[in-house]
Amino acid sequence: MRRDGREPDELRAVAIERGFTEMAAGSALVTFGKTKVICTASIEEKLPPWLRNGGKGWVTAEYSLLPGSTPERSAREAVKGKQSGRTQEIQRLIARSLRSICDLKALGEVQITLDCDVIQADGGTRTASITGAYVALVDAVAELGRRRSLSNDPITGQCAAISVGVVGGEVVLDLDYSEDSVADVDMNVVMNDSGEFIELQGTGEGSTFSKSQLVEMVRLAERGVSDLLELQRKVLGR
Amino acid sequence: MRRDGREPDELRAVAIERGFTEMAAGSALVTFGKTKVICTASIEEKLPPWLRNGGKGWVTAEYSLLPGSTPERSAREAVKGKQSGRTQEIQRLIARSLRSICDLKALGEVQITLDCDVIQADGGTRTASITGAYVALVDAVAELGRRRSLSNDPITGQCAAISVGVVGGEVVLDLDYSEDSVADVDMNVVMNDSGEFIELQGTGEGSTFSKSQLVEMVRLAERGVSDLLELQRKVLGR
Amino acid sequence: MRRDGREPDELRAVAIERGFTEMAAGSALVTFGKTKVICTASIEEKLPPWLRNGGKGWVTAEYSLLPGSTPERSAREAVKGKQSGRTQEIQRLIARSLRSICDLKALGEVQITLDCDVIQADGGTRTASITGAYVALVDAVAELGRRRSLSNDPITGQCAAISVGVVGGEVVLDLDYSEDSVADVDMNVVMNDSGEFIELQGTGEGSTFSKSQLVEMVRLAERGVSDLLELQRKVLGR
Amino acid sequence: MRRDGREPDELRAVAIERGFTEMAAGSALVTFGKTKVICTASIEEKLPPWLRNGGKGWVTAEYSLLPGSTPERSAREAVKGKQSGRTQEIQRLIARSLRSICDLKALGEVQITLDCDVIQADGGTRTASITGAYVALVDAVAELGRRRSLSNDPITGQCAAISVGVVGGEVVLDLDYSEDSVADVDMNVVMNDSGEFIELQGTGEGSTFSKSQLVEMVRLAERGVSDLLELQRKVLGR
Amino acid sequence: MRRDGREPDELRAVAIERGFTEMAAGSALVTFGKTKVICTASIEEKLPPWLRNGGKGWVTAEYSLLPGSTPERSAREAVKGKQSGRTQEIQRLIARSLRSICDLKALGEVQITLDCDVIQADGGTRTASITGAYVALVDAVAELGRRRSLSNDPITGQCAAISVGVVGGEVVLDLDYSEDSVADVDMNVVMNDSGEFIELQGTGEGSTFSKSQLVEMVRLAERGVSDLLELQRKVLGR
Amino acid sequence: MRRDGREPDELRAVAIERGFTEMAAGSALVTFGKTKVICTASIEEKLPPWLRNGGKGWVTAEYSLLPGSTPERSAREAVKGKQSGRTQEIQRLIARSLRSICDLKALGEVQITLDCDVIQADGGTRTASITGAYVALVDAVAELGRRRSLSNDPITGQCAAISVGVVGGEVVLDLDYSEDSVADVDMNVVMNDSGEFIELQGTGEGSTFSKSQLVEMVRLAERGVSDLLELQRKVLGR
Repeated sequence: MRRDGREPDELRAVAIERGFTEMAAGSALVTFGKTKVICTASIEEKLPPWLRNGGKGWVTAEYSLLPGSTPERSAREAVKGKQSGRTQEIQRLIARSLRSICDLKALGEVQITLDCDVIQADGGTRTASITGAYVALVDAVAELGRRRSLSNDPITGQCAAISVGVVGGEVVLDLDYSEDSVADVDMNVVMNDSGEFIELQGTGEGSTFSKSQLVEMVRLAERGVSDLLELQRKVLGR
Repeated sequence: MRRDGREPDELRAVAIERGFTEMAAGSALVTFGKTKVICTASIEEKLPPWLRNGGKGWVTAEYSLLPGSTPERSAREAVKGKQSGRTQEIQRLIARSLRSICDLKALGEVQITLDCDVIQADGGTRTASITGAYVALVDAVAELGRRRSLSNDPITGQCAAISVGVVGGEVVLDLDYSEDSVADVDMNVVMNDSGEFIELQGTGEGSTFSKSQLVEMVRLAERGVSDLLELQRKVLGR
Repeated sequence: MRRDGREPDELRAVAIERGFTEMAAGSALVTFGKTKVICTASIEEKLPPWLRNGGKGWVTAEYSLLPGSTPERSAREAVKGKQSGRTQEIQRLIARSLRSICDLKALGEVQITLDCDVIQADGGTRTASITGAYVALVDAVAELGRRRSLSNDPITGQCAAISVGVVGGEVVLDLDYSEDSVADVDMNVVMNDSGEFIELQGTGEGSTFSKSQLVEMVRLAERGVSDLLELQRKVLGR
Repeated sequence: MRRDGREPDELRAVAIERGFTEMAAGSALVTFGKTKVICTASIEEKLPPWLRNGGKGWVTAEYSLLPGSTPERSAREAVKGKQSGRTQEIQRLIARSLRSICDLKALGEVQITLDCDVIQADGGTRTASITGAYVALVDAVAELGRRRSLSNDPITGQCAAISVGVVGGEVVLDLDYSEDSVADVDMNVVMNDSGEFIELQGTGEGSTFSKSQLVEMVRLAERGVSDLLELQRKVLGR
Repeated sequence: MRRDGREPDELRAVAIERGFTEMAAGSALVTFGKTKVICTASIEEKLPPWLRNGGKGWVTAEYSLLPGSTPERSAREAVKGKQSGRTQEIQRLIARSLRSICDLKALGEVQITLDCDVIQADGGTRTASITGAYVALVDAVAELGRRRSLSNDPITGQCAAISVGVVGGEVVLDLDYSEDSVADVDMNVVMNDSGEFIELQGTGEGSTFSKSQLVEMVRLAERGVSDLLELQRKVLGR
Repeated sequence: MRRDGREPDELRAVAIERGFTEMAAGSALVTFGKTKVICTASIEEKLPPWLRNGGKGWVTAEYSLLPGSTPERSAREAVKGKQSGRTQEIQRLIARSLRSICDLKALGEVQITLDCDVIQADGGTRTASITGAYVALVDAVAELGRRRSLSNDPITGQCAAISVGVVGGEVVLDLDYSEDSVADVDMNVVMNDSGEFIELQGTGEGSTFSKSQLVEMVRLAERGVSDLLELQRKVLGR
């Protein structure tokens, strides 16, 4: 029995509020239990130098924990003068994940930046970020389509992510912070709507995992992602 | 006549949503028209080195524009590796303003950090931050009072702020971005509930202002602040 | 009675030594009592990227306290690796002030940088910097005129600045460090020679100020600036 | 058929030269084909602040590409002033992997830093680093045992790592750079000598992977790690 | 014949204005022709961590070119965020030179920082800095002696420095910028009043030098330093 | 008698392993006793901005101590976020030395970077770096000649370096760390194969040196360099 009464294979209450802010081309507030992330997608005409005049666009991501998003205040990285290794790992993961469902040629020579700013952190912020950023990205691409004609749809599929892990010897889905902090194993799984894997990152934090645990974690993740993909479709009115 | 139909001495629609997030000791979402700022107040037992063992506490502030808060994406300061001069000016102003209505001795040896993160920027973000941070601060001090007994109330008054300016030759209250970007003069006024001034910063951006314009700007600011102080009281149930 | 015997509305001994150094296009050593600042104005053909090919020039400023300028040595910012928030605030103020009396179109596509390096700090360094930088700027513009023909005078007026404050309940002009460190209120006022305000920044450091004190501070500042403008004219031989 | 003639499940020529340098407490030069990494393990009495007086030690890692290790020179991170996100990801992975086979209590209050400096980079540098760092760590712990008596062996198992991936539709073991740069999928697998997984990081770079490909990659990785574990034992004379 | 009419072994007009500023414990303005450097010596009770409680003091130095000290403005290092390699080389040289004539035990547990800020740069700024810093140091040590009793004199000798070089095939003393920029060889020589060498740094910039040129450069340097040592004595009233 | 039994004018065992790594255009492992440095020379088409389109090339250098190269681990500069003053001094010295034997016009518009990474540090790392970098440079220039036709040989001579010093009152050649750490005087001498001096840097660390000691140090250095130049020729097959 989990602390909050959930079954091992049960997601927390999940919601995506599309269009949460109105300045960026696309935005969403994504909620997994107490975890809340503002995802925005901004269109910039300027590409990074190594991509200019290559006939392709780019999708990148940045991530932060707002200082007040945790019970103990998290130091602001702009004050410390650099992003932590953890932040960089997460934003690289978000960007790779979303690029995997984009046709960068179809996008044309623009950059879309996905900003994922966590306003409440209770575990699973990176997977919530990926799941919410997808909705912001779709709306930004639609906005791009209103600004210029796009011959092909730059969005080639759906993408969502969930965490799984081993807590107290049992494989569970969608760990909250109280579970994550005592988990033996923590795995983040990013998938598309063809049932294929985009990323799979499993870590035995102070512990290890067997092949059978790996198989069971993957099975739960497939279930969780499937529900998230359906929520994305509903939110986007498909 | 102003672009959005307001009278010269009229505030935008203003709102404060108390307890907007639940991790920090106090929080508020403050709205001035399209400008929206998440203000959180976090309690830390650790004081900055120069204040340790002095029998007093400290109130400080940090400010940021989230990258997606502006129509053109704002570069993330954590990526650039430093806070801009503008950011530092604003967060120093917020901190001085709120300290002016605090009894740091009554607070005891704790630090309260006010984080003001702008999620939509449409002018007046610094004055909105001050006005909202007050509500977050009051709730954080109440939380502190639940954790330990406070012999005196560390909050000695109320504090709110508004911008005034000269636009097209006319003195107006609470400029939005479309006004601010063409204003001859821009002034930020921070006041307390005794009708006294805490800060007053007037800048002739590419222009100058006369003494009579100064007097008129101050008069409008007094009116605006008065309404904001009343809103704060209402939100706090006083 | 003030510590150094001055009347409330009396300036310290003020002097401007024009051409103090000979490498920069313009320079001045400005003295307010024990406060001494070397101001230089350097002409650069290279504009910041966002201004290139716009048919206009730029005036900017940088400020520092030399480490030996204070009785307790001030840490060198080049060693700390960044400029403090205070330094940035001050140099932004100096630059805005001097730009307000410049016709950037008449200047043509050059940048003039005003460097204000404090060699003795005894209060009022930012207002002394503005007052001295004006003289350096005038000489740099004259030098620019010798290098190329300027159709209009890029200098459209005069600019000087002074501090006022409330010390022990009394409004006083031109605070030295011993006054500044115990002042209830500190206000910096930048004006031009038409009697208009360029900047006005008042701070209640641990205190607040009433409207009547504001009016009185402004009155004293007008007097002080008037004397400084006259000194500038005399030094420049007008 | 692979470019260099290897079978899909064949490792490159692998070697570990124990004691490659003599200043650090432990060291090894690890070779995977043309990839060469100097691994050193240094003992420091000083723990990071958050671990002091906790009765436990720490194992951490740092990673770099020497500028001359790649055909196109790699910029030196000390000159750029920061470590890239990629570098931080890798060194965090190395450290977590090696900590998983350490008993930090048995280590006592010392820190061991594993430095992995790549002198030739031809793919698989992070897995080579983990595999070589193990040997350096074992020798550093032996040296620690000579300096002070250790009641229990701080090394609780063996740890090695290998990359697998999908290249041209085929699952292959131990990718060199020419394969890695065109791979559809790249996965790094860290395991211990109980056949358990420590880390598993799979990325579909511009592609995705199916569950059956995942299973096949894991199978090849198990084979590769098994050979590396045996090599480690041989090098260590066990 | 040299451009400015000097003989090969002739110094420029040299002067030291003792007590140039009054905030630091010691100060001097040193002039070598058009080169002018403000040297201050500040006493701090706080030692760097590695020297604390060792019964000894420390003498260190920092150097900068003020931006307006050169005809082409020199970028401010505090803005660039770091000191250049050249700056660090120079300040390390100044510090080593002055420490060589100090008895750090006699100094007691204080740090004296020598700040050398160049206000006009026309070649030879590092040797001028050393020569002037000596005078500032002597006065700071005298001030230290007034604050606490010193059993032994911490100043054990005199120290001065001069540049020599090969210009157009001829060995010359005290190069100005016009000579330095075309010199084949540039050598800085630091000596004490016993005729011994403290530092000797010779560089063939795009050229090399023979042993006989080395001998001749050393001979000229000895003469130049001898005059500077006498000037120091005169300025200090000895 | 020296600790390791050498005569005062005797070098340690010196070796240069040409082609130590195979990715860079040139490389060498240079050994002076226990001191070992990997030197690589990389060719880049891209020149620094101030040299572009000038018809000349550039030779630069970077230096580091690998963290595990010293018995007490040396902190990694990429982690500290900047190169120390010592590192910058050394790499500037290496670059100047090698440029002195290059014809930058003959090189054409390319940059060659000499990376000197110390894998074992036992004194004399900067002189070993210069001596080994010469071999790497020669091989990189040969490789450049294979890529494009060079009308003149860009290498105009040979260059090697050695340290000399005063230890316990005696002048000795090629100090190891145990000697260097107690030396009264330390001098690095860089020479070419015409018997001319390129650089000469002598420092009295806590001591000074007389003219006769200077002459004796130079004599020993000439002998040492002569042997090193011969070793270079032998290694290069000349």
